[in-house]
Amino acid sequence: MPAPLSDSPQQVHIALGDRSYDIRIGAGLLAEAASWDGLPAAATALIVTNTTVAPLYLAALRHALAGRYRTVFDVVLPDGEQHKDWSTLNLIFDALLAHGCDRKTVLFALGGGVVGDMAGFAAASYMRGVPFVQVPTTLLAQVDSSVGGKTAINHPLGKNMIGAFYQPARVVCDLATLKTLPARELSAGLAEVIKYGPIADMAFFDWIEANIDALVAREPAALAHAVKRSCEIKADVVGQDEREAGLRAILNFGHTFGHAIEAGLGFGEWLHGEAVGCGMVMALRLSQRLGLVDAAFVQRVTALIARAGLPTVGPALGADRYLELMRVDKKSEAGQIRFVVIERPGQAAVRGASDDLVREVLAASTR
Amino acid sequence: MPAPLSDSPQQVHIALGDRSYDIRIGAGLLAEAASWDGLPAAATALIVTNTTVAPLYLAALRHALAGRYRTVFDVVLPDGEQHKDWSTLNLIFDALLAHGCDRKTVLFALGGGVVGDMAGFAAASYMRGVPFVQVPTTLLAQVDSSVGGKTAINHPLGKNMIGAFYQPARVVCDLATLKTLPARELSAGLAEVIKYGPIADMAFFDWIEANIDALVAREPAALAHAVKRSCEIKADVVGQDEREAGLRAILNFGHTFGHAIEAGLGFGEWLHGEAVGCGMVMALRLSQRLGLVDAAFVQRVTALIARAGLPTVGPALGADRYLELMRVDKKSEAGQIRFVVIERPGQAAVRGASDDLVREVLAASTR
Repeated sequence: MPAPLSDSPQQVHIALGDRSYDIRIGAGLLAEAASWDGLPAAATALIVTNTTVAPLYLAALRHALAGRYRTVFDVVLPDGEQHKDWSTLNLIFDALLAHGCDRKTVLFALGGGVVGDMAGFAAASYMRGVPFVQVPTTLLAQVDSSVGGKTAINHPLGKNMIGAFYQPARVVCDLATLKTLPARELSAGLAEVIKYGPIADMAFFDWIEANIDALVAREPAALAHAVKRSCEIKADVVGQDEREAGLRAILNFGHTFGHAIEAGLGFGEWLHGEAVGCGMVMALRLSQRLGLVDAAFVQRVTALIARAGLPTVGPALGADRYLELMRVDKKSEAGQIRFVVIERPGQAAVRGASDDLVREVLAASTR
Repeated sequence: MPAPLSDSPQQVHIALGDRSYDIRIGAGLLAEAASWDGLPAAATALIVTNTTVAPLYLAALRHALAGRYRTVFDVVLPDGEQHKDWSTLNLIFDALLAHGCDRKTVLFALGGGVVGDMAGFAAASYMRGVPFVQVPTTLLAQVDSSVGGKTAINHPLGKNMIGAFYQPARVVCDLATLKTLPARELSAGLAEVIKYGPIADMAFFDWIEANIDALVAREPAALAHAVKRSCEIKADVVGQDEREAGLRAILNFGHTFGHAIEAGLGFGEWLHGEAVGCGMVMALRLSQRLGLVDAAFVQRVTALIARAGLPTVGPALGADRYLELMRVDKKSEAGQIRFVVIERPGQAAVRGASDDLVREVLAASTR
């Protein structure tokens, strides 16, 4: 039965004891003062954003926050995954210190996943921790960064190698911001939405299949349901495993192959969601070769990934390079690569696999 | 009644739920394999140390760990507070990634407070958190860094501005390492030992007065008691306030003035403990001017600080510069400087004070 769709604001509560928070989802929330009610009191706030998002939404957010904080500062970072490094992170620390921000100052991350990751790690580290609020303006960030508390920067030798688990005080997903999102980035976000089907909820997968055209057309009611359900599923998984000891690893479906694509091409060449979309196809083929799912299922998911506008064939980096890159992945242990595979539709597991099997998958999935 | 002294190993248990750990205190512990029993299992360990400590103790620690980890790597940092910055921290990340260290790799901090702060923050941040063990080789680090989980690096605009609260899996205080400590650094450590008297335990203060010569002469039994009692008091305070919301601030007695001295002269000019020793004299004089303690008490504590070989007169930076530096201190709120004052011998509190009063104190305490 298809889920009922609604234009009215949605809310997902993330229950984490004294670090619990709400995700608010709706069109136009960013500019409404009420969206920010109940946040920690402070004299100052710092909005962290980037050169692409600032011209679109910075003024509106500043205006909405003006009544809550005596002074609202901002820092505008260069845009792009290639800037998710220490020197860009340090621009946030420079701004915090130059403005005399104290340990009550609230950081607002206004932008996509890169802004959220950097503002979140800055908030986790500045004076050993200040409050922060996520205002994700990409679909990927809305469904992926809203839940889980992961923050990080990249190191030349690996993606997201330096970071912290740090929970936001609130997440506000303004669906109106998705109207200005480039088509490639919308597709990248859909990769993470589609992901929740094979790993956790085939009824949601059915719904996505039925509504993929509405999602690609950015219909707010469809987007609201996709964001809400993705956050709910992720919250359910993370709630059982906040520090990523076990179950949470299934959220990395497609990410081991995907990170290798990103690192192998150079960060920023493919979008993260594009690499994950293609990585899911590879992980599905691995699952099939391990005898877990059949070819029809692999074909069905691959078709939806393609309809979402995502690549399903990986770059020809060479199997040796893929394997080398996957061995330095955070999820590997003592050099053993850990793959998230689909055990059966709607259920994932973490498994090792022989290099030979991985080479077969890569031969069939790259060109 | 003086506390009984003993040469046998001491232990302090830090109770923090699933992050509880033990501090082991004794002469020669570093080289004993038994000191490392029960630590998290891993294929690899990384010892973080510096150019001063490496020639003295690195081989012994490597030898003691050889049976526990398949491979023990090390990274030798430049020595000194001036290197407690991102570029030195990054040497640790470079080593972790170059050696393919995973999220189970255990970091060992072998050295003083700077090494502990950097290795601790690296452990907190690498792959969002790997286990770490403190092996403090200075008195200051043994009494100060063993408890509280504070890790950080400096920023050009402020000390310890970027860091994390992160608990070690164990602390091993080898008193034999204090034999090679320069006299200035021993005195600097005694500043933090003396601190616990006025803020929390005047019986301990009496004991320090009676044993200051034995401490300066580095008698192991006296040092063992001083380290153990300091850790116990700190653990008691931190246990009531792990995230530094309130009570824990009293541990910063002498630190607001002290940080201004360190920052004003340039980090590394005075040792941290020297600045804290002098800062305690200033904070005591402020307490006296606030009508909380009498001149005789100020004189008594000042005399003990001097007998420990510490400065009791601050550098003439000018009152404006002192005030400016104290306003950017992490403990200030919305530009209001918060001072730790002694309410009565053995009890501290956090208070604001007028700039005029602070200027009087500085005029009487600097030259």
